[in-house]
This record gives sequence, C-alpha cells and structure tokens, in this order.
Amino acid sequence: MPVNLTPPVAAQLLPVSGITLGIAEANIKQPNRKDLLVMQLCAGARVAGVFTKNRFCAAPVIVAREHLAGTDGIRALLVNTGNANAGNGEQGMKDARASCAALAGLLGCKANQILPFSTGVIMEPLPIAKIAAGLPAAVANMCADNWLAAANAILTTDIVAKAISKQVVIDGVTITITGISKGSGMIHPNMATMLGYIATDVAIAQPLLQIMVNEASDRSFNCITVDGDTSTNDALMLIATGKSALSEVNASDSEAAKILQAAINEVAIYLANAIVRDGEGATKFITVHVEGGKSNAECKKIGYAIARSPLVKTAFFASDPNLGRILAAIGYAGIDDLDVNALKLYLGDVLVAENGGRTDSYREEDGQRVMQQSDITIRVVLNRGNAEATLWTCDFSYDYVKINAGYRS
Amino acid sequence: MPVNLTPPVAAQLLPVSGITLGIAEANIKQPNRKDLLVMQLCAGARVAGVFTKNRFCAAPVIVAREHLAGTDGIRALLVNTGNANAGNGEQGMKDARASCAALAGLLGCKANQILPFSTGVIMEPLPIAKIAAGLPAAVANMCADNWLAAANAILTTDIVAKAISKQVVIDGVTITITGISKGSGMIHPNMATMLGYIATDVAIAQPLLQIMVNEASDRSFNCITVDGDTSTNDALMLIATGKSALSEVNASDSEAAKILQAAINEVAIYLANAIVRDGEGATKFITVHVEGGKSNAECKKIGYAIARSPLVKTAFFASDPNLGRILAAIGYAGIDDLDVNALKLYLGDVLVAENGGRTDSYREEDGQRVMQQSDITIRVVLNRGNAEATLWTCDFSYDYVKINAGYRS
Repeated sequence: MPVNLTPPVAAQLLPVSGITLGIAEANIKQPNRKDLLVMQLCAGARVAGVFTKNRFCAAPVIVAREHLAGTDGIRALLVNTGNANAGNGEQGMKDARASCAALAGLLGCKANQILPFSTGVIMEPLPIAKIAAGLPAAVANMCADNWLAAANAILTTDIVAKAISKQVVIDGVTITITGISKGSGMIHPNMATMLGYIATDVAIAQPLLQIMVNEASDRSFNCITVDGDTSTNDALMLIATGKSALSEVNASDSEAAKILQAAINEVAIYLANAIVRDGEGATKFITVHVEGGKSNAECKKIGYAIARSPLVKTAFFASDPNLGRILAAIGYAGIDDLDVNALKLYLGDVLVAENGGRTDSYREEDGQRVMQQSDITIRVVLNRGNAEATLWTCDFSYDYVKINAGYRS
Repeated sequence: MPVNLTPPVAAQLLPVSGITLGIAEANIKQPNRKDLLVMQLCAGARVAGVFTKNRFCAAPVIVAREHLAGTDGIRALLVNTGNANAGNGEQGMKDARASCAALAGLLGCKANQILPFSTGVIMEPLPIAKIAAGLPAAVANMCADNWLAAANAILTTDIVAKAISKQVVIDGVTITITGISKGSGMIHPNMATMLGYIATDVAIAQPLLQIMVNEASDRSFNCITVDGDTSTNDALMLIATGKSALSEVNASDSEAAKILQAAINEVAIYLANAIVRDGEGATKFITVHVEGGKSNAECKKIGYAIARSPLVKTAFFASDPNLGRILAAIGYAGIDDLDVNALKLYLGDVLVAENGGRTDSYREEDGQRVMQQSDITIRVVLNRGNAEATLWTCDFSYDYVKINAGYRS
C-alpha cells in the first residue's frame, strides 16, 4: 500500500487558465478503464520538457522531441496508458505520428503541434485504431476542472493518483501551478517510467522555461529510485499558458523567476515523492540525505548506492536495523578516495556509525525504534566538503516481486 | 533451491600436495556448526590474491593485504564464518591481528605468515575469544583430505557447498588444482560476498601467480551478480605449493602457463557459477552473453545492466518472456552512441528483436518455451565491433526477499 500518500481531492486541484483536459476509455489494454488523456493548450502557450536518456527511447519520445523543436507552437498533449509504443521499430514511429494526426484532425491544428506520450507494456504494437476511435470522446468531454480525472487516466501499476496544486503571489498577482504524475515501477533516473505534467498560468520565456524544467527535474524526478530500472518513455513537461495578469518572466535571476522556480520545484518534488510512496510493493518511504561531500555528484553517487541496494531495501522491509549493509553500500559507491573513518551515519536522529564502525553509544533498540517508522531518513555526513544531495527510495518487499512477476507491465 | 548444482562428493576432491585443512566449531554465531577453517601451507608455498574494492573493506582484508606484501612467506589461511569483522573500526583491526597471532602460536610461525578471512554479519564485534578457543581443535584435525569439510565450513546463507578438482598434464606431469568457494547474497563484482581459494601443486613464480589470479578473477568472480551488492570482505586466493615434479612456471607466454591458466580459469568459473546457481532465492541460472561490441568494457556494461535489472530478474522468475525489459536495460546501460536499430537480441536460440523492435518471426510460444528452462542464455549481438563478454546472474524471487528480510547476514 502507498506509504503516507493520500489520494488527491478534486476540490484541491485548481484549473490552470488556458488548459482543458478530456479523458476517454479506448480499451487499449483492458476494457472499462480510462486510458486516454487529451490536454488542450491555448494559443501562445509554451512547453518545455526533459525526456528519458534511454537509448531504446520510445517512438512517442522521439516524436515529442521533434515537435517541441518546431516553431508552430504546441496545442495539445496526448497521453495513452496500457502500451508504451517502445521497442516497436519503424511501425512504432508511424503509429506515434498517426496518433498525433488523428488528434490534430479533431482539434483543427497541425500534427506537429501535438506531443504524444505512451506508457505501459513495451514491444507490443500500439493499437492505433483503438486510440483514434477513442479520441472523439476525450475531446468531447474536455473541461478545465478535469485534473483529477486526468491524473487517474495516466496510471499503470500505480495505486494512488498523483496530483497537486499550489498558488503563490508574485508582484501582487496570484499565480497557479497544477501538476500530475504517474509511475510506480521501473523508477530510476534519468528518469523513471514516469510521466509528469506541470502547468502554470504565468507567461515564461521559452529559454527560461527549459532552464526551469531542467532544474525542477534535477531536484525531484532525477532524485528518486524504486528499482534502478530506467524507462524508455519518461517525460516531464512544463507548460506555461501566459493567461495570468503577471508580465512575462524571462530572466532567471529575477525575483519572480526565483519564486516561481521554488514553487515549481515544490510541486515536482511532491509528484516525484508520490511516485516513490506508491512504489511497487513499498511499505516504507526512505529519504537518503548525503552531506559534507566534495560535490553534488559524489553525494548522489553514495546516495544512490544506498537507495538502490536490494540488501538495504529488504532490511528496511524487515524493519531490521542491519546497518552494516548501509556501510557496505557507501563503501562500494565508487568514491576511490573516500575516508570511511571520517564519516558519520545516522538513522533518523540516531548516530549509528563513526570512526569506521558502530559508535559506542548506539543501542539496537534505538535503531529498532526508528526502523518501525514508515517515513525514515538515512543521513550520511562525509566531512570532506560542503556539497549535499537528497534522494528518495522505498523498501523492497514480497509484493515488489509479486507485482513484477505477475504483471506484463 | 540451487539451480542445477549438485553438492560436491568428497571422493572427487583431490588433495593438493603441500596443503592440509582443519575445521572446528567455534560457536561464533550459532552452536553446533563448523565455522572455522585453518588451511596450512608447506614452507615455500606462494600465495597471490585479489580483494574487494569496497572502501569499507573489512579488517581481515586490510591485514591479509599487509601480510601478503611481506616477505616471510604465508604458512596458513584462517577463515571464520558467522562474523565479517567489517565496520568495526580500530577494534576490528586488533581482533584480526589477534586471530593471526593465536593461530601462529599454535603453528609455530609468525603472525604475519597468517592470512585472515571473515564472512558473516557486518558491524558486530568479532568474538576473538571464541575463535582462539576453537583453533586448537581445528589444528588437531588437519589433514589433506578435508576439502569437502572445508567447503562446508566457510558457508553462510549458501545451501550447497562449492568445490571442484581438476587435473591436467603438463610436460608429462599430472598436476592438480582444487578450489572451494562460498557466497550466495551480496554478490556483485568487484567482487562478491564471496571467498574463493584455489590451490595447485605447481610451482609458480610470484609475479606470474598474481597475473594468474587477476586473470581468473576477471573471467569468473568479476562476471557474476546476484543482487548488485558488493561485499566488504571478498577475496580470491591462488595458492601454488610447488610440490609437483613440474619445474617452476614463470613466463606468462609459456605453453605450461597457458595450460595452467586455462585450467585455473575453468575451476574459477565453476566456483563463481556455483555461487550464482546457489544465489539467494534463485530458481533460474542466466548466462548473459554480449558480443559484437567495441570493447569488453562496453559489453560488460550492457551485460550488467541486464543482469542487475530487478525487472528482468522478476520476469525470469515468472517465466514470462517480457523481453521489452531487456531492451530497456540495454538502452539505459550508458552507451551513449549505441545504435539500437543495429542490435539483435536472442533468448536461447530464439531471435527476439532486431531493427529496434520485435522481429516478425518471433512467436510468444517460442519465448515461453525457452523461459521454462532452468538454464537460459540471453545473447545480445551489438554489430559494432569484435569484443565480447559473458556474465552470469540468477532470477529474483520471493525467496530472495524472504532470506534477506529475515536473516541478519
């Protein structure tokens, strides 16, 4: 079950002026399930995104990148679940383009003004006829209040929908940010089997929009892991409709940009954490904070060695403070000049290890007490610099194996 | 249960002239269990080894490296199971030295002529008094025929003992190689929670001995993974007693060296594969062969991405030919210029993917047929060079989680 993650409530999700959302049942993988989302954008809306670095990236990723590079302006996003359209060779490319053309026909725009996204099983042909047949219904029910339905429509093995809204005041104008995401397994940067869409009504210059989505991604979706597997389809999109009264934000060092970036990061971190909290089989949510490093990169390296270790993750599942496994993971992280005698390891508020071994003050019952909690922080203090990194992971349970040995995802 | 791994039979394990082995119950972690091994070497025997690269390497690893660098000659190896003496700071170093001193006292040699090895739980103090008390019994029962008992005495979560002997004829002289190993979880290079000891009666010059153990390790123990975790204690030792009638082998390009290296590699690969076959919770043994790469390093990188992927490993557990997961793993292996359209993927004898997607001839029932087998080969043909690499892994089952969530190993 998801760890301390409550389903979003429709009333708390705020429309973003300039965006309407429509959903439909297209029977892509199974019947009686909303599996198609159309997100229509007003003219003049800008979109920037980051995509998976997987070399086997899916056809829709290639097409979306291509369309984003164009100058006609993006008018809609099309998301299907149930099929990833990945590993489908030339036919996959044709199908991704055909899905854009089908939606463009309905919306009266060009195919290259549509961004396609797919998630689900890999290496199965995309049922393009079903998608085309489902689109009219999605277009017919488009409205600005459909964020919760949209968050539900993009799920695969997720249990809980992921969505959040946030408002901040900039120069006296209240601006809105609303985001949704999906992802549960195959979660590891760069990035996750995860789709994320964050929209704001602010006008943001295109170059700054790209900077902002990169930054938000680096602080959130690129800091989570469930199983270390990186998907073929990952994408995070940041949409700026420009419908608010605030004048265009274009300088990254402006006060407005800083407030906006912080708020977008917060939304992105919530959405990324929600993916880990809903990680396949997760029973514990674990924050790994590494500080005192020489660089952010080495802190992340150590953090990921801990966060990915099946031995660490099964120990957390068992609530067993078998903390030597964390030391072992730090040791194999690949930091060749790491002085293991200089670091300190904390579990929650409990100092566990220093001077290369367990600290004298450590008591098994203290470790046990922290291990019983469902939200746990591992803190590693390297004492060799000022850099830090925070990552998020979950434990590794019977249910992870059950889900992934049973479900052709 | 171990995958196609039969327990060794005492009669098939050949003594190596110049080596005697003694075992004892020292109650290190639990009573009524052989947990102590002494391997005594004749004067003039040579030893070379490779050790874990984990920065949190255990105290016995540090001490063994130190003693190997000395010039007094190694006269015995001391192995305890039940406690890794890792993450124990300064006290761990004192205890490792004390164990060498205790054995040296009994054998009438110097403490720096003993190599200590420990395996078991991390970050618990080594019960040095129990070890010292157990040593006389081990010394008392030393004999040349104790290889099977020795293989059993070094196990932790292993189910089956790992041991093999091989004889080859060089220049008309029959020479013997006998090896034992242990390891089941925390298995990943460099190297594994694994201990390996390979002994031959040949006289081998010290520099060549080091070359040979490096080569054997790179072809075997550094090509396996169970869970991607690298231990603090891994060690592979190659012992050459020099008791055979064959004259000293000292040139790596000699015919004798080549025959010997091939035989040692074969023993090392058997012992390393046995660890994977006995991998925690394993139900399938998977060979990952990557060929047509630009370098061995890139072939290994792709092979390990596949071999480590929890999604791939759970699919094999389920006998589900969900082969898109293999493509995804190839894609995120980190080969930036990889042309995914140029590669071919085979499952056993079945061509699965080419031209960036599933091949037209592929039938689900063919994949299913191969997946039912307990020994399966995944073959990736990169078509961009002449390098290759072979790795071995196992599937990921409920029992892996059960073993590691239940056992403080």
